[in-house]
Amino acid sequence: MRAEVLAVGTELLLGQITNSNAAWIGEQLAIAGIDCHHHTVVGDNHRRMVAAMRASLARSEAVIVSGGLGPTQDDITREAIAEVMNVGLVRDESIVERIRTMFASRGRDMPESNARQADVPEGSAVIEQKLGTAPGLICPVGNKVIYAVPGVPYEMEEMVTRAVLPDLQRRATEMGEEASTIRSRVLRTWGMSESALAEMVAPRVDALEGSGGATLAFLASGIEGIKVRITAKAADEESAISILDAEEQELRRLLGPAVFGVDEQGIEDVVGRLLSDRGWTVAVAESFTGGMVASRLVDVPGSSAWFRGGVVAYDSEVKHDLLDVRPGPVVCAEAAEAMAAGVSKLIGTNVGLATTGVAGPDSQDGVEPGTVFVGLCIDGATDSAQLQLPGDRARVRSLGTISALDVLRRRLQS
Amino acid sequence: MRAEVLAVGTELLLGQITNSNAAWIGEQLAIAGIDCHHHTVVGDNHRRMVAAMRASLARSEAVIVSGGLGPTQDDITREAIAEVMNVGLVRDESIVERIRTMFASRGRDMPESNARQADVPEGSAVIEQKLGTAPGLICPVGNKVIYAVPGVPYEMEEMVTRAVLPDLQRRATEMGEEASTIRSRVLRTWGMSESALAEMVAPRVDALEGSGGATLAFLASGIEGIKVRITAKAADEESAISILDAEEQELRRLLGPAVFGVDEQGIEDVVGRLLSDRGWTVAVAESFTGGMVASRLVDVPGSSAWFRGGVVAYDSEVKHDLLDVRPGPVVCAEAAEAMAAGVSKLIGTNVGLATTGVAGPDSQDGVEPGTVFVGLCIDGATDSAQLQLPGDRARVRSLGTISALDVLRRRLQS
Repeated sequence: MRAEVLAVGTELLLGQITNSNAAWIGEQLAIAGIDCHHHTVVGDNHRRMVAAMRASLARSEAVIVSGGLGPTQDDITREAIAEVMNVGLVRDESIVERIRTMFASRGRDMPESNARQADVPEGSAVIEQKLGTAPGLICPVGNKVIYAVPGVPYEMEEMVTRAVLPDLQRRATEMGEEASTIRSRVLRTWGMSESALAEMVAPRVDALEGSGGATLAFLASGIEGIKVRITAKAADEESAISILDAEEQELRRLLGPAVFGVDEQGIEDVVGRLLSDRGWTVAVAESFTGGMVASRLVDVPGSSAWFRGGVVAYDSEVKHDLLDVRPGPVVCAEAAEAMAAGVSKLIGTNVGLATTGVAGPDSQDGVEPGTVFVGLCIDGATDSAQLQLPGDRARVRSLGTISALDVLRRRLQS
Repeated sequence: MRAEVLAVGTELLLGQITNSNAAWIGEQLAIAGIDCHHHTVVGDNHRRMVAAMRASLARSEAVIVSGGLGPTQDDITREAIAEVMNVGLVRDESIVERIRTMFASRGRDMPESNARQADVPEGSAVIEQKLGTAPGLICPVGNKVIYAVPGVPYEMEEMVTRAVLPDLQRRATEMGEEASTIRSRVLRTWGMSESALAEMVAPRVDALEGSGGATLAFLASGIEGIKVRITAKAADEESAISILDAEEQELRRLLGPAVFGVDEQGIEDVVGRLLSDRGWTVAVAESFTGGMVASRLVDVPGSSAWFRGGVVAYDSEVKHDLLDVRPGPVVCAEAAEAMAAGVSKLIGTNVGLATTGVAGPDSQDGVEPGTVFVGLCIDGATDSAQLQLPGDRARVRSLGTISALDVLRRRLQS
């Protein structure tokens, strides 16, 4: 089974946005065991869209088209697919109603142009849109298929996961491809370089070589720590998952506390679980991270059970006045510990977590950019950690946020 | 003159890296006034690389191939181009020497595999490599051309800027095209749906139709508001920019306060500029946004001049105890205004900005998810706005953050 990705949008050709949709879909297809040999981008141009879909269908059994489903005149994916299918467009009144209701729920009238989003090529099936207005489409072309999904990433991801991948796998089985399942699991790590991880895992990689069991890969994408992906191919899900379980155990033994979570589990989710296990509450005091630590804790559903609040003490006076930090330097271990103690006292929690540091670009009071202190206060007892973080202002702030959460995570796990 | 971008690399198909090279090259081509109608990605596969180059050359006069010039066995761009040119590869000893010297300068011997990087399709010209080991190539195919550049972004960018774009523009002139430049500008908007914007701008789009002046497009990428892109093609940069200036003025007249910024300008940048223009300071009190508003303000370089800090009042008690919010419901206009007043008093600023609402997934005290109140306090005078936001918990929090900043932005601009 081969599938291709066709991203539609002149803004992609002009480089105003990067084609992250193709990367995401490509990764999902690989995990699902479906070959993908081409990614293509064309602009909002009917003739070129039609030609690109035909070229893809000549090479592959399926093409996933993302973008061009909006309400405006330059959104013409529906029309282009109809031409490839050699059918007309029919308006689906139930979709019009859905969109009308959606606008109404926001106290707005549906602009007439949105009705275009309810036009469906004859003979195609609709993928219900759960997050936005544009529905997706499953469009048969002979024994092949065109999937149309929105260009908005989170709408696209939800639709591909819920409808497109399952349909592709069903077709693969119908094509007589021996039903095999590929499952993967990602171990999330923090605090080790990729090469250090690779060295620790190397013997395991050799042991697995040609074993037909799991395979391992390192993913350094983004800044949320290095990921170790375990992939297992097996006849059925159950066997695949038991391979993953065994390998996860093996890797956790090798990597120890560097592993903080699995798959989509963020470090804030782990911290939240550890806190609620103890029935503890936390408050945060933030300087250079400016609310990012608090925001990540609030991201966790149910966080109100263990997160009470925090203080963004960006200006030094706020540190002194609200958090009882002694006059003097504010980027040091003493200040970090005072902030942690001050905020847990002010807000009334067992745990206080604090960040102070220099995000840059300029150094501050002779302290280099990237110098960061994390303060921790648990039931009155304070402690702190110093870190030197790389990168620009945004990177130092993000790395500092994760590092602060990791300091608390390791303490709660020890 | 039409050019296409062909990115080579299985890691792109697998989504292990996003195709930022195509975005960058696409932008450079647009600025140079060279049409680019297709971006393609293929893996490290000889047959598919050859087919992709032939398809590109059948549609366009030039194709820029990035990647596959490395020293390893799966770097086969040189071989594929030679097949398309129907010539053999000849080793350029001067390149071998350059690479050998380069390794020597780092006190290393050149691995023999690197000699492959000196293989050049007969009849092609070499683009000197100034940053890495792989040289680039200019490969004539009839009266058309294939450019080969490295996949490493900074090596690729240097080579495209220095050698590829000038060569393309020379060819365009030879083809009798008069020199032209394309410039574009993006107007950032908040508070209107794409279709509502489209309807307001429709008369302008019609007026411009075939005028040879600017063209307009809507970009709904991400959640940072709908963008209206103005693109102008003219003989030189100066004329292109004056077209953009005139059209921006026209659109601002049509769209009014919905336009908050231009190009990369974020709403927090605009708020920061407006505050420092007045010499005002701001503090924020956040409930469901949990620090996201503060974090975005801290993102702005130099924010310490006008942002002092804030309180994350996630737990209701924190709202009552720290911000003097009266006992009773906390998701209402009164609470939002009290939070804004309380935080500006607590931290000592002219302006207090506050958010309270229900992010979901569950409703709270009978209040539906998505219900949001933004409180504002300027020199003691309070005011508030109510919004109903769509989407899941993460989306409501992000939209609520931008909406809160927009409430302050509109007030400061009015």
